[in-house]
Amino acid sequence: MTGYILDESTPEEIQAERDTYGPVAQALRDLAAATIRTAVDPEVAGRALEHLQEAHALLASEVGGASYGVKFDAEGNSRPWGNAVVGVRNAVAVPVEVETGTLPSGHDGVWAEFELGPQYEGPPTLVHGGVSALILDQVLGEAAAAAGKPGMTGTLTMRYRQGTKLGKVRGEAHVDRVEGYKTFVVGHLETDDGVTVEAEGVFILPRWAREAPEPDSKPLRFD
Amino acid sequence: MTGYILDESTPEEIQAERDTYGPVAQALRDLAAATIRTAVDPEVAGRALEHLQEAHALLASEVGGASYGVKFDAEGNSRPWGNAVVGVRNAVAVPVEVETGTLPSGHDGVWAEFELGPQYEGPPTLVHGGVSALILDQVLGEAAAAAGKPGMTGTLTMRYRQGTKLGKVRGEAHVDRVEGYKTFVVGHLETDDGVTVEAEGVFILPRWAREAPEPDSKPLRFD
Repeated sequence: MTGYILDESTPEEIQAERDTYGPVAQALRDLAAATIRTAVDPEVAGRALEHLQEAHALLASEVGGASYGVKFDAEGNSRPWGNAVVGVRNAVAVPVEVETGTLPSGHDGVWAEFELGPQYEGPPTLVHGGVSALILDQVLGEAAAAAGKPGMTGTLTMRYRQGTKLGKVRGEAHVDRVEGYKTFVVGHLETDDGVTVEAEGVFILPRWAREAPEPDSKPLRFD
Repeated sequence: MTGYILDESTPEEIQAERDTYGPVAQALRDLAAATIRTAVDPEVAGRALEHLQEAHALLASEVGGASYGVKFDAEGNSRPWGNAVVGVRNAVAVPVEVETGTLPSGHDGVWAEFELGPQYEGPPTLVHGGVSALILDQVLGEAAAAAGKPGMTGTLTMRYRQGTKLGKVRGEAHVDRVEGYKTFVVGHLETDDGVTVEAEGVFILPRWAREAPEPDSKPLRFD
């Protein structure tokens, strides 16, 4: 399996990477929202475009691999910084920050609170149903990993109970049961309207990981 | 239902809107990919950030509503330009361009071919499972709409057969059956590895649309 990179980064180097590129990704998120909403005339938009082209020339002047992959430091901490949901270097990502602990229901699991802007719209004023699925896939997968049962998504089912308004959204998930190398996870999204989308996912430990000689001694994370 | 806006835009005005803001969104997509891959030093990243802040100040100097919504012209053509999958003004969107016609299987349906860059990554070198769900939700919904049965997503189920490599991806969907106001749609994503993700969705015509006095005379589209 390629792309899982164990590097020699120190905590200081990792913090420097975050400080250098995180604000660039955040500026792009703000720009994505502004580009949907803007009503400036073509001349102003053209000047904005020139700045974007200048920024691109600077950032593209030195690039690494074709994609970010997932990097690990010597302590086994992962950096999924290109990830489409949680990646701090990814302008497409919200980014969702997932917490681990006891849920209001009493289950051990994971949760996240985040804000969805106009770039996540589907039906007018509502979160795109597919964006809900995108985030729930990640949150459910993190619940499996937090329970020590990381895996690739096998199946994922969403039930849309009501529209999810753009704005503040909370997601949570916990492991329902484990059957061999399959982990069954349930979760949902909610707003101040209550639960909006329910999800169930089956996460599967890949064969290569099952057959690894020391399965408990290496960091496993499939995001 | 708010946010579906019938405006007075002429074809020329619509084209001008696309020509003005479409290139800005595309520049942001290129920047999102570059920001994940860049290895420039902090000084260069800082100069890029200044350009992004300048661009933001220009674009945010005059903004419309909180989100784009879906606009219709007098002929009933829709502009879901803020949509998270197909929106030409949305840097988060690929954007996927959906075609209608006969599929290789012989079914009438919809399909799309598109390229997924590093901003859509989940596991290293692979498309995020949730991004596959995001795109399939849209493609399946468009299949329902193309068959004259538009609806909000009720349920959506994905079966992940194998990893979907970043790069060229094709998606397709067709209506399997209609039961009252529920439309059952099936579809999949494929790469040169074959089918990677299968999906089934149930799309539901909202009550307000069912009860509309002239259901066939207005454009219905719930993306």
